[in-house]
Amino acid sequence: MESLINFAEEQQPSPVMTNSWSKQEAGRSEMPKCAGGFVLVHAGAGYHSESKAKEYKHVCKRACQRAVDQLRAGALAVEAVTAALVELEDSPFTNAGMGSNLNLSGEIECDASIMDGKSLHFGAVGAISGIKNPVLVANCLLTEAQKGKLSAGRIPPCFLVGRGAHDWAISHGIPPCPSEKMATKFSLSAYKRNKRKMEMAEKMDAGQNQEKKRRQSSENENGSGCLDTVGAVVVDSEGNVAAAVSSGGLAMKHPGRVGQAAHYGCGSWAENACNMNSYSAAVSTSGITSCSTQLCTAK
Amino acid sequence: MESLINFAEEQQPSPVMTNSWSKQEAGRSEMPKCAGGFVLVHAGAGYHSESKAKEYKHVCKRACQRAVDQLRAGALAVEAVTAALVELEDSPFTNAGMGSNLNLSGEIECDASIMDGKSLHFGAVGAISGIKNPVLVANCLLTEAQKGKLSAGRIPPCFLVGRGAHDWAISHGIPPCPSEKMATKFSLSAYKRNKRKMEMAEKMDAGQNQEKKRRQSSENENGSGCLDTVGAVVVDSEGNVAAAVSSGGLAMKHPGRVGQAAHYGCGSWAENACNMNSYSAAVSTSGITSCSTQLCTAK
Repeated sequence: MESLINFAEEQQPSPVMTNSWSKQEAGRSEMPKCAGGFVLVHAGAGYHSESKAKEYKHVCKRACQRAVDQLRAGALAVEAVTAALVELEDSPFTNAGMGSNLNLSGEIECDASIMDGKSLHFGAVGAISGIKNPVLVANCLLTEAQKGKLSAGRIPPCFLVGRGAHDWAISHGIPPCPSEKMATKFSLSAYKRNKRKMEMAEKMDAGQNQEKKRRQSSENENGSGCLDTVGAVVVDSEGNVAAAVSSGGLAMKHPGRVGQAAHYGCGSWAENACNMNSYSAAVSTSGITSCSTQLCTAK
Repeated sequence: MESLINFAEEQQPSPVMTNSWSKQEAGRSEMPKCAGGFVLVHAGAGYHSESKAKEYKHVCKRACQRAVDQLRAGALAVEAVTAALVELEDSPFTNAGMGSNLNLSGEIECDASIMDGKSLHFGAVGAISGIKNPVLVANCLLTEAQKGKLSAGRIPPCFLVGRGAHDWAISHGIPPCPSEKMATKFSLSAYKRNKRKMEMAEKMDAGQNQEKKRRQSSENENGSGCLDTVGAVVVDSEGNVAAAVSSGGLAMKHPGRVGQAAHYGCGSWAENACNMNSYSAAVSTSGITSCSTQLCTAK
């Protein structure tokens, strides 16, 4: 986990993830212009190979830098957090975008979500294939929803999945990327290894009934190990917060499986301070879907 | 909304949606054997044609009866709630399963979820096509997840979408149903009407810029009007609660759009009383996704 805190020249005294503004400090619209900013990124929970520690640190640093560059250019938190996520997704070492885990059919299907603490708008995609940066689609859904309703009063979508999500992305100018280009040497060899492991486990259990088989094979906590979902939270110079998360999901997952990264209130959460709440909060989670989703961890 | 309350011979004194058990009453495992049961179903918020009021009442009553029959035969709440939902989905008058709203491409894509208050397990499908009863897939996902992990320690899915959800359903014995058989005379004529309306709105706005166009067309709250998601909550004779919801989603939605019915904590929620909480609760929501999802209404 890497963070670049208060990059601007005028620094804040005590930067923390949860940011508070008192009414007394409020300059305009109950929300003061912040002198600095805050960027924090993560490359996920789960097993990270020691031999790749350097790479993970590098990509986290680059992602921080992208968000900082955006903030310095006057971008809002939601734009900066998107920039950080794009960098994390582009790395072949993370389980998001390029180099994501392969599913049971050997395909890449990604989940991503983003939330804008200012408008409380949320955008998410689930089980999307053939798009290098799923976070760009999530952000585009959020941006489009902020423009208001569609023709004939139709409500714009905030969560799209599968082929529909892919087609929507293309029609909104996000370029497609052939799946074979998104798989890496590492993800392909992990797939082959996991498939062998699965076949062996099924062979060993062949003589036993389904009940026993499941209990015996439940000892390994997601044997494939690659849970390195990526995410970031950003506070911009106006004090707006934003959060995003992106994941290739569990290795050997069933096609169509959507994990916590795309679940509202589970993958990411961002909420600006307001009259009702004097604290801003931004959260980007990582972990095992079944646990995190059930807890609605982000919210 | 119809409810059949305390169908069994031994009746409860004051049946309510939220059911409480005091420790003093507890017979075994802090949870007494309940003498009756509770079934409540709804056919959704939104516009319901007056001319079809009788049909809606009939289908709600039949759905209640299905759940009651299940409970009388000794079924658990989660099985009874599934039976009620199947009946609601099978009605051509509701916006779920048969007769669901058609999307922008003239296809039916359904969302459904179910939650078991005893185990807190949750199953959901989003944007699923070619399956007459999406709630059966959601229930099957829940049941399979309760069996424990898959081979090689893989975590079973609880939320599947699109083609992957369809294929998983077929591989688990749920029969496919051609989409053309799921569309009704009513849903097809509503699609044609909505399409004309949309084209007219877009024609009228053609000379204006996108921003203005959206604002002008935002006056009608989902012009198509069909928001009649269906759902039910059940308390079984052991005091277990379960909730389920099923929806064809908004008319003219973008393909791949997933609505609140499939969102964890938004479409349905069920939680048995336990040591930490002396009240059982079961919720099945209906309304406009953008509002209900943002509030995580069910949870």
